[in-house]
Amino acid sequence: MYRFTLLGAGFIGAVHAANLAAHPLVDFVSVYDIDTARARDLAARHGATATTELAAALDPDRVDAVLIASSTDTHAAHLRRAADAGLAVICEKPIDLDLATATEAARHAQSRGIRAMVDFNRRFDRDYAELQAAVRSGEIGDVELIQLTSRGPSLPPLSYLAVSGGQLRDQAVHFFDLARWISGLDPVEVHAIGSVLVEPRLAEYGDVDTSVLSLRLPGGALVQIDCTRRIGYGYDERIEVLGSTGMIEARRHRTGSVSRYQAGQVIENGLHPGWFERLQPTYAAALDHFVRALADDRPVEPSLADGLAAQAIAEAATRSLSTGRSELISYT
Amino acid sequence: MYRFTLLGAGFIGAVHAANLAAHPLVDFVSVYDIDTARARDLAARHGATATTELAAALDPDRVDAVLIASSTDTHAAHLRRAADAGLAVICEKPIDLDLATATEAARHAQSRGIRAMVDFNRRFDRDYAELQAAVRSGEIGDVELIQLTSRGPSLPPLSYLAVSGGQLRDQAVHFFDLARWISGLDPVEVHAIGSVLVEPRLAEYGDVDTSVLSLRLPGGALVQIDCTRRIGYGYDERIEVLGSTGMIEARRHRTGSVSRYQAGQVIENGLHPGWFERLQPTYAAALDHFVRALADDRPVEPSLADGLAAQAIAEAATRSLSTGRSELISYT
Amino acid sequence: MYRFTLLGAGFIGAVHAANLAAHPLVDFVSVYDIDTARARDLAARHGATATTELAAALDPDRVDAVLIASSTDTHAAHLRRAADAGLAVICEKPIDLDLATATEAARHAQSRGIRAMVDFNRRFDRDYAELQAAVRSGEIGDVELIQLTSRGPSLPPLSYLAVSGGQLRDQAVHFFDLARWISGLDPVEVHAIGSVLVEPRLAEYGDVDTSVLSLRLPGGALVQIDCTRRIGYGYDERIEVLGSTGMIEARRHRTGSVSRYQAGQVIENGLHPGWFERLQPTYAAALDHFVRALADDRPVEPSLADGLAAQAIAEAATRSLSTGRSELISYT
Amino acid sequence: MYRFTLLGAGFIGAVHAANLAAHPLVDFVSVYDIDTARARDLAARHGATATTELAAALDPDRVDAVLIASSTDTHAAHLRRAADAGLAVICEKPIDLDLATATEAARHAQSRGIRAMVDFNRRFDRDYAELQAAVRSGEIGDVELIQLTSRGPSLPPLSYLAVSGGQLRDQAVHFFDLARWISGLDPVEVHAIGSVLVEPRLAEYGDVDTSVLSLRLPGGALVQIDCTRRIGYGYDERIEVLGSTGMIEARRHRTGSVSRYQAGQVIENGLHPGWFERLQPTYAAALDHFVRALADDRPVEPSLADGLAAQAIAEAATRSLSTGRSELISYT
Repeated sequence: MYRFTLLGAGFIGAVHAANLAAHPLVDFVSVYDIDTARARDLAARHGATATTELAAALDPDRVDAVLIASSTDTHAAHLRRAADAGLAVICEKPIDLDLATATEAARHAQSRGIRAMVDFNRRFDRDYAELQAAVRSGEIGDVELIQLTSRGPSLPPLSYLAVSGGQLRDQAVHFFDLARWISGLDPVEVHAIGSVLVEPRLAEYGDVDTSVLSLRLPGGALVQIDCTRRIGYGYDERIEVLGSTGMIEARRHRTGSVSRYQAGQVIENGLHPGWFERLQPTYAAALDHFVRALADDRPVEPSLADGLAAQAIAEAATRSLSTGRSELISYT
Repeated sequence: MYRFTLLGAGFIGAVHAANLAAHPLVDFVSVYDIDTARARDLAARHGATATTELAAALDPDRVDAVLIASSTDTHAAHLRRAADAGLAVICEKPIDLDLATATEAARHAQSRGIRAMVDFNRRFDRDYAELQAAVRSGEIGDVELIQLTSRGPSLPPLSYLAVSGGQLRDQAVHFFDLARWISGLDPVEVHAIGSVLVEPRLAEYGDVDTSVLSLRLPGGALVQIDCTRRIGYGYDERIEVLGSTGMIEARRHRTGSVSRYQAGQVIENGLHPGWFERLQPTYAAALDHFVRALADDRPVEPSLADGLAAQAIAEAATRSLSTGRSELISYT
Repeated sequence: MYRFTLLGAGFIGAVHAANLAAHPLVDFVSVYDIDTARARDLAARHGATATTELAAALDPDRVDAVLIASSTDTHAAHLRRAADAGLAVICEKPIDLDLATATEAARHAQSRGIRAMVDFNRRFDRDYAELQAAVRSGEIGDVELIQLTSRGPSLPPLSYLAVSGGQLRDQAVHFFDLARWISGLDPVEVHAIGSVLVEPRLAEYGDVDTSVLSLRLPGGALVQIDCTRRIGYGYDERIEVLGSTGMIEARRHRTGSVSRYQAGQVIENGLHPGWFERLQPTYAAALDHFVRALADDRPVEPSLADGLAAQAIAEAATRSLSTGRSELISYT
Repeated sequence: MYRFTLLGAGFIGAVHAANLAAHPLVDFVSVYDIDTARARDLAARHGATATTELAAALDPDRVDAVLIASSTDTHAAHLRRAADAGLAVICEKPIDLDLATATEAARHAQSRGIRAMVDFNRRFDRDYAELQAAVRSGEIGDVELIQLTSRGPSLPPLSYLAVSGGQLRDQAVHFFDLARWISGLDPVEVHAIGSVLVEPRLAEYGDVDTSVLSLRLPGGALVQIDCTRRIGYGYDERIEVLGSTGMIEARRHRTGSVSRYQAGQVIENGLHPGWFERLQPTYAAALDHFVRALADDRPVEPSLADGLAAQAIAEAATRSLSTGRSELISYT
């Protein structure tokens, strides 16, 4: 049994809490949040202890592992503290919006020798995992082209967007990680064009809501990403990988399998309303991977280095938005 | 080149005429119809001669083959005349609504040694042919269950229905043929239940518009057919064959491949409006089979015997509608 | 909170136990099983008490409701005991294999005024529920034809089949319930043909492994069911309802949404390996319906009467297998 | 009736010939080719006259319209000659590989006032036409993102590629036209990255076989194109258009509708083997549009100007391949 503490009792913290409580190898010990009431409510729901003291939450005598689901600006500090306590860590992405800060925190964690995972949860989607395994096994030969679609149903609040780091750091970054994971390669260059089509005020932050990215992998394979914030018809993700001997696709998910036949048309169930409905099962799967990796003494993935690499791509892509040219990506 | 005469210049005659005119191995010589103007119009459109004299139409010095597309009540007589003239024959189904009359005409044709085909055109549908070949090759092991769906978009005119012989002789008969062709077996018994749900006046003819059939094949495999006259949402056919080692399905056809994604639903192109839009290509394919079989001196199929066998099933099925019990099928 | 006891700690008991433990309105009190160790193990896993004494398990001072998941031959007796104790009941189907015994037990329960549900869990499948609601709302007009496919991946053990009551009482009965639920009507007659294609020894029990059923509903709408025990390609259920103004289908479920494109073919994820993988979520949904119905003082469905009605159809269908004719269904 | 002459009796010339012969409003008069035998064979097959004299082929006393399907390097000269003769023209794309030459020829044609169409045949695909009409009608609101996939099954011969102008001028150009036609807008800038993954010798021509393009439309909507020469799994085209209120997709075409269910997988019919099988019907549809536009005195589309615009995009895109930056597109 691994004794866990959870940092952060907000929306996603509550999701993690339920998964921690249900996992057969997890002893869900405590919930930390700066908001006492919120911590107490969530802890009570799952028979855990609430605390507003970080030191207590990260006490290595009481816990073995920590799940960092607090606000983004606290991730790096929490990671350092957890590393100092020698705890295993699952950290919500990003480690820090600032790549330099993130890199330092990751190095610190590495120097303490802890096991740490960045929660790029899409890697634990059933379909994506099947696709990745097929590609990596050589089933479609050499990768030649990867297409990734990332489309959200509606614009997040401006208050969130203002501190998000921009569409490429906030939204596309998941798909940079997927491209690396699927291909097993670090992209060498990236080009981005973007537009403000939905919310004119985004331009004030130098941000965009609709963007298209092209990446080149070592060896010449290409990656195409489209990234939009508001599509109206639901939450839409898909992946397609073209190889030298075949193609494999993880199709859009539908909410059900009901078809209605009418004159001239057939109506089928649509997409999920939001990312959470689509991706909910991946959180439990990511936790399960982490715990079993601890138990079997296997490496946990995606690693902090994976988190930094995806951020490095986002930096170059964001630069390309304003230069209009393909930018080389430098990994630290 | 095979010199063809066409008997019947109505709707389906016009379809056959276009196919005869376009086939590279066919010399489309003449069109016969009791309606002079209709024969003349259709003949003119394709550079053929019109005639209202059957003897001229079937003159073996001028033609090698005849396509019988005249009204149902003339098929048997035309088949006999064509046989007497030694011509090869494609005959629209049925040979005659009365099974005894049909049997005699078929025997007469056989005694003259002509090659004759009943135009169960569905056998020439691309998908059905792929399915049948897969089943007959043993790809799914032994056949255990066949499902056939036959649904028309709207009720044919009562004037037609009154002389059609009833839903099972007129509509289901095509699917009796498909069941025999796919399995390679002659069903031994059949049960039918039917209802009048669309047009109350059908009850006056002892007819139904909605029926469900169960057949047993030698060896115990079962066949299920649903047969409806008016579905509103288009023309709907599908076939599913379950074998001991797999299942194969010929899905519904759609008119196109366009999808519209909206909140909560995806709208796709619907079914064809009618049987003709769905099955049009099968007429040319059936003709092509016939002509190439002549050229290569191979047997033509479906044979007149196939036509009689499907009718024999329809007789027993129609009987079952009133007895409420499984009826044995007797083939002549 | 509703205090529950669970009767039966076998495979399906364990499924129910997990759902009871997870439901926010349920206090999972105790597990009863004649096998002490089995009861103890399952209880321990969920913090409940184990007991081998039925009286303790059904003590109305300690529990409000009971979930009967013990072996079929004990259902009726357990239902009576629970009714005597005034407990609410969820009972796995059937109440008893013998319709008379089942009827008496149901009457007894009714005389005690308890709330009781037969666990026809398919009614709680997301797709089936959407389909049923659409049909009952009149979305496709009047029902004209219902098709139900019920196919299992492999033959259950002969030891089970020997006491199962036969394919129609054991397997088809779920689909008789679905037909009633979807249409809101009690079928008036049924015809069945069946074959032994998989396991010759079934013939010794007068049983079949492959069957096809035709039912007539009041008003003339028809129902078609195909029922097979071993298909090899997975677990296969589908429903199609044709109405006077449209058609609605609950399609086969696939295990994922991955497509592989190769020369000449596209390979997609297949069906679930068994009924449990396909239907697992319905058990929790059924429990949730039951508990919320208790909380809101709404009727629970499917009722014991629904259970008896489905069994009555199965009786007539089983009779038809040997008489070869459509049999009238008599409801008690 | 419009009297047509056909220039060019090669593979695509033969396709056009069959369509000319079958069209009810076309009188297929003559076939011109510098290869006498080839011209004669094709003419004979359709009852037309063969000629190797261009003046005879373009004699305005004998023909009203000309279909230019000769080799690319002759298009511009043939267009000029046809314009001088006052004939209506369908011209296979491109007018000339050299944009300046093409522009001059188009201006010459315009100065003569003839009606001329560039045969971007994909505009006449049933699905693409439905998609375009939906988009242009405002059904999905304002266009925000267009995705176009263009993938060929196998590399064309090097001898062809050497004179093709490169992948973007030869292959992507069709999709530049589709993007303009669907959006009704002229892209303002384009970025391209490309690789040589299939055939190393392509690098000698400065060509690529795999490329990814990003375009910006006036107003900020984005276009994404992927373009590959050899995919192995068949011929693959698809289009997706995301608008402010919905999304519409023209899916991949399959060769049939047969599904095979096996343990763990479902196998469906694959894509067409090549572009011709996929696009064959569009040639007849394009001809039909042209002829009916002549008959109704409506404008023919795509116009010569459309041809030049698509080429202008290809020029800028080809430039971007080497500069690595987004290039502005200048239309003449």
